[in-house]
Amino acid sequence: MVDILHRIGIKASVDQVYQALSTRAGLAAWWTGNTQGEGQQGGTLVFRFSAGGAEIGGFDMRVLEAQPARHVLWQVTDGPAEWIGTRIRFDLKQSGAHAIVLFAHLGWKEPVEFMHHCSTKWGVYLMSLKLLVETGKGTPNPDDPHISGDGAD
Amino acid sequence: MVDILHRIGIKASVDQVYQALSTRAGLAAWWTGNTQGEGQQGGTLVFRFSAGGAEIGGFDMRVLEAQPARHVLWQVTDGPAEWIGTRIRFDLKQSGAHAIVLFAHLGWKEPVEFMHHCSTKWGVYLMSLKLLVETGKGTPNPDDPHISGDGAD
Repeated sequence: MVDILHRIGIKASVDQVYQALSTRAGLAAWWTGNTQGEGQQGGTLVFRFSAGGAEIGGFDMRVLEAQPARHVLWQVTDGPAEWIGTRIRFDLKQSGAHAIVLFAHLGWKEPVEFMHHCSTKWGVYLMSLKLLVETGKGTPNPDDPHISGDGAD
Repeated sequence: MVDILHRIGIKASVDQVYQALSTRAGLAAWWTGNTQGEGQQGGTLVFRFSAGGAEIGGFDMRVLEAQPARHVLWQVTDGPAEWIGTRIRFDLKQSGAHAIVLFAHLGWKEPVEFMHHCSTKWGVYLMSLKLLVETGKGTPNPDDPHISGDGAD
């Protein structure tokens, strides 16, 4: 099992960051504009992505845990084969004026090339989360920066 | 042992990307402006970083392998304790108009919080590499985007 790990600091309270991780509107404003469902514990979130105006797939997540100002844990229930069964965790802590986000995408079976891609792309999306909370405007799909240009987006 | 993995695609030839990974001038233009030493096989590279005009540390690397248009492999010989002995690898391959970079920072002993930070920061610097090769201008330290703002930079 291999994991994707990231860390960012956001000039905000952990409560503000938690809103962006646990509400449909918050998630739609930094990860993908096409977000449906409920981010509360026990809910299901449905994320879809598009490129060039066409939907290119996405992920369904069951919200295993959602503890205000502390953490969020999702399990992937549908999406690319490599993602199914993996878990995505956001741990929050306050450090002075900054909310620290420790991110983990846990339980990849193998360090395949697609995992390398997803690692970089998660970093880009976490910078979108930071931008959203600090400025009010993120860069969710389909306005996300492209990292490859070779079709992997 | 745990690894940091990334993947980007750069609209360029693998030869162009290899130049940016194996020459002092190339490395200085995307990773850190304060780069000294030699990037050829058997050489030593000395990378130093600064913030607010003051030097804040860096890394010394021995170039274990440097194969034109194919790959680069460094071993960290000095720097933060967590980095010493780890290896950094860039594998290149051409995919149509794009050079694909598979990046790995291999051999972390533990998935400490600092590793989470370095994972995100490597992603940011790889986007600087992409920007450099595609546009002629990257965002090396000290002009790198900050990802935390809490002193971890």
